[in-house]
Amino acid sequence: MKDIQSLEDTRRIDIRKVGVKNISYPVTVLDKSRKTQETVAIVNMYVNLPHQFKGTHMSRFVEILNRFHGRFNLETLHLILQEMKTRLQAEASHIEIAFPYFFTSANLHTLFRSQRYDCRMIGSLEEELDLVVEVEVPVPLLNGKETNTGEGDGGTGFWGTVIVSVRLSHFLWLEDLIELIENSAAQPAGIGSSAETICRRLGSALVGHSAFSWYKVVVENVSSGYTTSASVEGPMATSPDFS
Amino acid sequence: MKDIQSLEDTRRIDIRKVGVKNISYPVTVLDKSRKTQETVAIVNMYVNLPHQFKGTHMSRFVEILNRFHGRFNLETLHLILQEMKTRLQAEASHIEIAFPYFFTSANLHTLFRSQRYDCRMIGSLEEELDLVVEVEVPVPLLNGKETNTGEGDGGTGFWGTVIVSVRLSHFLWLEDLIELIENSAAQPAGIGSSAETICRRLGSALVGHSAFSWYKVVVENVSSGYTTSASVEGPMATSPDFS
Amino acid sequence: MKDIQSLEDTRRIDIRKVGVKNISYPVTVLDKSRKTQETVAIVNMYVNLPHQFKGTHMSRFVEILNRFHGRFNLETLHLILQEMKTRLQAEASHIEIAFPYFFTSANLHTLFRSQRYDCRMIGSLEEELDLVVEVEVPVPLLNGKETNTGEGDGGTGFWGTVIVSVRLSHFLWLEDLIELIENSAAQPAGIGSSAETICRRLGSALVGHSAFSWYKVVVENVSSGYTTSASVEGPMATSPDFS
Amino acid sequence: MKDIQSLEDTRRIDIRKVGVKNISYPVTVLDKSRKTQETVAIVNMYVNLPHQFKGTHMSRFVEILNRFHGRFNLETLHLILQEMKTRLQAEASHIEIAFPYFFTSANLHTLFRSQRYDCRMIGSLEEELDLVVEVEVPVPLLNGKETNTGEGDGGTGFWGTVIVSVRLSHFLWLEDLIELIENSAAQPAGIGSSAETICRRLGSALVGHSAFSWYKVVVENVSSGYTTSASVEGPMATSPDFS
Repeated sequence: MKDIQSLEDTRRIDIRKVGVKNISYPVTVLDKSRKTQETVAIVNMYVNLPHQFKGTHMSRFVEILNRFHGRFNLETLHLILQEMKTRLQAEASHIEIAFPYFFTSANLHTLFRSQRYDCRMIGSLEEELDLVVEVEVPVPLLNGKETNTGEGDGGTGFWGTVIVSVRLSHFLWLEDLIELIENSAAQPAGIGSSAETICRRLGSALVGHSAFSWYKVVVENVSSGYTTSASVEGPMATSPDFS
Repeated sequence: MKDIQSLEDTRRIDIRKVGVKNISYPVTVLDKSRKTQETVAIVNMYVNLPHQFKGTHMSRFVEILNRFHGRFNLETLHLILQEMKTRLQAEASHIEIAFPYFFTSANLHTLFRSQRYDCRMIGSLEEELDLVVEVEVPVPLLNGKETNTGEGDGGTGFWGTVIVSVRLSHFLWLEDLIELIENSAAQPAGIGSSAETICRRLGSALVGHSAFSWYKVVVENVSSGYTTSASVEGPMATSPDFS
Repeated sequence: MKDIQSLEDTRRIDIRKVGVKNISYPVTVLDKSRKTQETVAIVNMYVNLPHQFKGTHMSRFVEILNRFHGRFNLETLHLILQEMKTRLQAEASHIEIAFPYFFTSANLHTLFRSQRYDCRMIGSLEEELDLVVEVEVPVPLLNGKETNTGEGDGGTGFWGTVIVSVRLSHFLWLEDLIELIENSAAQPAGIGSSAETICRRLGSALVGHSAFSWYKVVVENVSSGYTTSASVEGPMATSPDFS
Repeated sequence: MKDIQSLEDTRRIDIRKVGVKNISYPVTVLDKSRKTQETVAIVNMYVNLPHQFKGTHMSRFVEILNRFHGRFNLETLHLILQEMKTRLQAEASHIEIAFPYFFTSANLHTLFRSQRYDCRMIGSLEEELDLVVEVEVPVPLLNGKETNTGEGDGGTGFWGTVIVSVRLSHFLWLEDLIELIENSAAQPAGIGSSAETICRRLGSALVGHSAFSWYKVVVENVSSGYTTSASVEGPMATSPDFS
């Protein structure tokens, strides 16, 4: 009696989202000066299922990934999402590809021949493609004495991290996005600033730029014991949902 | 000339969210059998600022935390959020407290006198308090041969993780929430099941329960090389936003 | 034929070391001002087996841990190691207990009511007990302009980490060890220094101190992109082996 | 007076070991079927200094790394260690390169076109070169019912990890080392076994093999709540020291 009831209840509960995550996978990404760069990505893939859908072949996610082996870029991302939707009979498909990108910027860190920047491409396909590019850039932070914002934490860190997310209006090299961030963060004196000041500078550089239809900036300052952060976002209020 | 332009642009960019995160902090939480349990939390605190707000005293976050030292529970969480809103002149305040909770369940792991469960309390205050309690519970998974869902990944793992998030209608002990999850996950034969089956069982147990006004279940199966996951949520479509 | 050969080979291979690690466990440690402090430890336990020993009851490690629940200190550590040796019929036993310790030092970080220090107790018992206490202390680092050591990396970090390991000649409070480290690192001007300078200062403070029969100091400077480190050790050349 | 004393003490303390660690760096490694494979490594570099040595140019470590950019293999490792010794005027030099290696083994995981194996090369140069190659291989573990070793933990895991370290007598492809490990771990029935049994099988396969002058095997079983491990080593008792 109990078991029958339980079965009936269970039937009414619809799984809406299934996927695979933390797949370590070699990828080839576009490189401005060397054409392509081979690196190692962590890939997450999800689909939203229609109500009453019965079961999913998890192995299909990896089969799709394998079909695009060695061909990951902004164009194939659309095709991967399309194939996920079709083969898994899904209402929507999502993919997230996080990878270190190595590049010697003209700006700051000339010591390393190859400087690491952590990047992410986050794509979703329901009716239309939605694509967000994210890059993490180390920036110099100072003790805030140049500003009057009253931050009590200003003196506790020397290097901070800027995480910039953008939706692109047209193609932009990762290299150009990184140098735009480094140049904006370093103005005007090239000696860095507080997290809030850098947030405003980057917002100012991104909000009017023709390459971006949306942006978000988070500046984090890892100091002894905790991390302070400030963020700004625009022009729309919504950030990409990939939770 | 350039600098003046830059300053004008910068003034129009409003920081909307500031905070501190990854604060390691000792907390005392309520314990059903021992009254209280001392453990170590990771705390994140954020506020949303009104437009045009100039500067934030980051140190105030930690001062507020210190004022409630040794008194963290579901009741004081409301007071902390209130004080964050007031002292930082914010439109909304957010806090997230993640901690291991030790408790010997009547169900599964009798080997350990103290079994670890990772818990989180996530609170937000704008006009009203919004509070989500989250707990991570290890569950036995089998190779899916008992189901006909066609999962290709079913055989690759033995233990999975269930992450249950709930909004509470009334007080519930963490211990009772954990045992509810373990009992539901283990039905009917006590030998575990595939991720999708466990998802449905837990959804079935939580959706009609008077203690919860909202729930979300994610079942993850860490196998060799990648993690598969399935999730279900209800009755509302919105999950708490603490990104 | 092949299988028989294989079996014979296998019999000649003796497992010499077995254990359990990454056990998350609540522990009560001695606190100078509050008598005891409850915190959460990660525990590793190993034994060395005699040749030809057949099989080990892994569950016995956890049973021993449970017998000492709530009573972890420098004295019981000896008893735990003794019981491991006896119950597992081992030639030698090893235990490592890593935990965050919270304490408001008189020195540096007065913002936090409770400041986190990561500590470890590393014990081994063969014929005699060998016990090492280790503590990680954040220290201010400067850009090295005060020294003429020619370090090219001096300017890239602001806070560093000192990891001090000692063998004790007599009992010493963790609080006293931490303040000794903070005072030594901060001399003479209280404004910090390069990793190498701090290494020398700490070596100088520890080498002649009656509480220590052995010490090791590692100073690490996490900067943008990589970590620099310098270490010093004495009077003996051997560090504790718990790999 | 105090300061002079302090300075005198400080002069007697000799820094013996300095280095850089956690450098994320793109490397090209040898690949049996594709000639080379580009991947991303974490690099640690240390030197032991002579007594009384004054100061080290930390930037020289990275300069040396950059000189060998795109040319990392077993041969250049020797040259890098030589250059570290010379340019930093050191008594001994040490390098550790950890990287994921992607390869589709003929054995186990046919789902992935590229399967990840975590590898490390650990080199030291004092008078002679000492080189250890290490690889981490996932292996199936069963519940120990086939053995009579009395392990209480046998039933708690399904996949384990084997970490094999070897000193090579002659060149061996990573692919051949990985397949040797997978074949040995899976014998005789291909269905896996307990950690101790796998340890013995691998020891048996490695101890008599002409390619290895030394080996160490650690088998780890991550189950719910803790990790069990067993290890075997031979023919010498000493493992490489890179702590």
